[in-house]
Amino acid sequence: MYNKYIEKIKTYEAGKPIELVVREYGIEPKDVVKLASNENPLGCSTKVAEAIAKNANRASIYPDDSMYELKKALSKRFGVDRNDIIIGAGSDQILEFISHVKLNQNSSILTSNITFAMYEIYAKQFGAKVIKTPSYKHIVNEFKEAIKEHNPDIVYICTPNNPTGDATKRDDVFEIIKATPKESLVVVDCAYMEYVEDEEYKLEPKDFISFSNVIYLGTFSKAYGLGGMRVGYGIANRDLIKILYKVRPPFNITTLSLLSAIEACRDEEFVKKSVALNREQMQRYVEFANKNNLEYIPSFTNFITYIFKEQNSSTIATNLMKKGIIIRDLASYGLNAIRITIGLSEQNDKLFKELSKEL
Amino acid sequence: MYNKYIEKIKTYEAGKPIELVVREYGIEPKDVVKLASNENPLGCSTKVAEAIAKNANRASIYPDDSMYELKKALSKRFGVDRNDIIIGAGSDQILEFISHVKLNQNSSILTSNITFAMYEIYAKQFGAKVIKTPSYKHIVNEFKEAIKEHNPDIVYICTPNNPTGDATKRDDVFEIIKATPKESLVVVDCAYMEYVEDEEYKLEPKDFISFSNVIYLGTFSKAYGLGGMRVGYGIANRDLIKILYKVRPPFNITTLSLLSAIEACRDEEFVKKSVALNREQMQRYVEFANKNNLEYIPSFTNFITYIFKEQNSSTIATNLMKKGIIIRDLASYGLNAIRITIGLSEQNDKLFKELSKEL
Repeated sequence: MYNKYIEKIKTYEAGKPIELVVREYGIEPKDVVKLASNENPLGCSTKVAEAIAKNANRASIYPDDSMYELKKALSKRFGVDRNDIIIGAGSDQILEFISHVKLNQNSSILTSNITFAMYEIYAKQFGAKVIKTPSYKHIVNEFKEAIKEHNPDIVYICTPNNPTGDATKRDDVFEIIKATPKESLVVVDCAYMEYVEDEEYKLEPKDFISFSNVIYLGTFSKAYGLGGMRVGYGIANRDLIKILYKVRPPFNITTLSLLSAIEACRDEEFVKKSVALNREQMQRYVEFANKNNLEYIPSFTNFITYIFKEQNSSTIATNLMKKGIIIRDLASYGLNAIRITIGLSEQNDKLFKELSKEL
Repeated sequence: MYNKYIEKIKTYEAGKPIELVVREYGIEPKDVVKLASNENPLGCSTKVAEAIAKNANRASIYPDDSMYELKKALSKRFGVDRNDIIIGAGSDQILEFISHVKLNQNSSILTSNITFAMYEIYAKQFGAKVIKTPSYKHIVNEFKEAIKEHNPDIVYICTPNNPTGDATKRDDVFEIIKATPKESLVVVDCAYMEYVEDEEYKLEPKDFISFSNVIYLGTFSKAYGLGGMRVGYGIANRDLIKILYKVRPPFNITTLSLLSAIEACRDEEFVKKSVALNREQMQRYVEFANKNNLEYIPSFTNFITYIFKEQNSSTIATNLMKKGIIIRDLASYGLNAIRITIGLSEQNDKLFKELSKEL
């Protein structure tokens, strides 16, 4: 009765929200420490919060669907033309557009072994097969071989990579692009790029505009502190953007989301402050790991992945949750590991204290 | 290179926003009267606006993806189980889910001749054919014949109908449902149902739960005044809801949208006030039509459609826009008509004054 490949899909379950911990464990909302979804621990820019509060009564008005002002801001920030930009409800939605225009039951995607779950989820929503390289890291030779063998329709490069936190060198990204046939798309997902400070790993959207088959994805959900507002963007050659526009629903972000993103672009200081706090607190997570002889993946992001040998990651995640600390268990990714968002100093204190008891 | 049926799609252009009129005609935002998108002229509930303002700094936090509180509120309001509900970014997104699970290049949908544009747009995004009955009204016999002849995979009943404003009698809706084979879905789109006061035309979601193949759609965009927040819902038998969940992206509405919808459910007075204002001002639009010998479609909604004989609807729409009044030209629907959202008394005064000059 329904499309066959749809019926096979398992329903995705998102990370646990604060509300659930409050409901299930009777913990006060103020006592819950959520370090599970890589939200910005500083919240959002006060300028954004002020703009939302001031414009709250615009909730009834549809947004400017041309997204004129936001595209202008992004165009200026990245040195690209407004026609090279598409806005999505999170960069997630742009992944959906890409999957929609490109995939069907005869196609496939290629990803690294452990990466952002939505690539696979959207591929399956369009009936496509998912091929993974052996490593979670984006190893050029592994990608080259898989491309040669499977000729995937979309190649995903997630850098920095979620949920592992590692990044791919700029030169390696371009090598993978060069190894991909022009008929296939390469998606360079840079949701965490603002946190990357090493020049060897830094990518800019304008580096990819000259390719007909490469798209750069960015988001306001992380360093810009707008996770709850669902705004992301894709930047690519305008012919590719035009195709994606064919499956974009009108009014795909809210009026207050549009306004928040425009305002967020005006407060680069907030991003700098967020990155600085992250750098400082990340150091504490590295020290905690070293002190406790815990394996970790060196991170280019606002989260860190701790890998366990003796303990069980799911048990630890559950025990922490009962104490009001939400982190992300990576068991479903095939890793005996947890992913922890770098929080505020006092949140991290609490995490260290409670996690110590589990080790 | 892309899915063939995607390349054929024309990009959808949404109605003109206030920002565009400001930019193109140099009119001050406060002087623009927008009666084009069926937004609530009262804005949103003050309780909603207050809740948004108070929670503006939650922009950084992902929403509770289980939408626990909102489903609880809707469940109470409609007397249905929470498992019979799915939330979308506007009811639009639920149309997309339905199209996604059901349609492909071998399928078709059936709609009345003139109805909500998104049914066709989403059908084409999945390669399906669109069949239309001869009339814009939902005539039972026309639907029966078309169902028999074409065996469509989805039958759309838009009541009240957008952009014409007419409604389908309750008994007729059930006759169309009975004439539809169980393997096909019937979508009963009731975005404007809050404005319907005639019992013969009133529909309730719970009337459809016993059918395995019928879904009721509602929205917070109209009478609830949340057009800019993108929140709609689908209510159906839970087996159907489960299938739709397979293609729902996580976090498909924003944190502030979720909070707004929950708050809106707590202020039914606002809806009553909106409906009362609409009833009172609608009467003026009927009188204006009668006085000017203008043909109109009796409306069950918050908008009215004026049909022209001598004048050209596109010329009128452009002339009004230059004066800062945005209404919807229906030329693209094959009607020499305009659709006007019923505004506040003073907005309607301005519309009547300027439209008079065009007649």
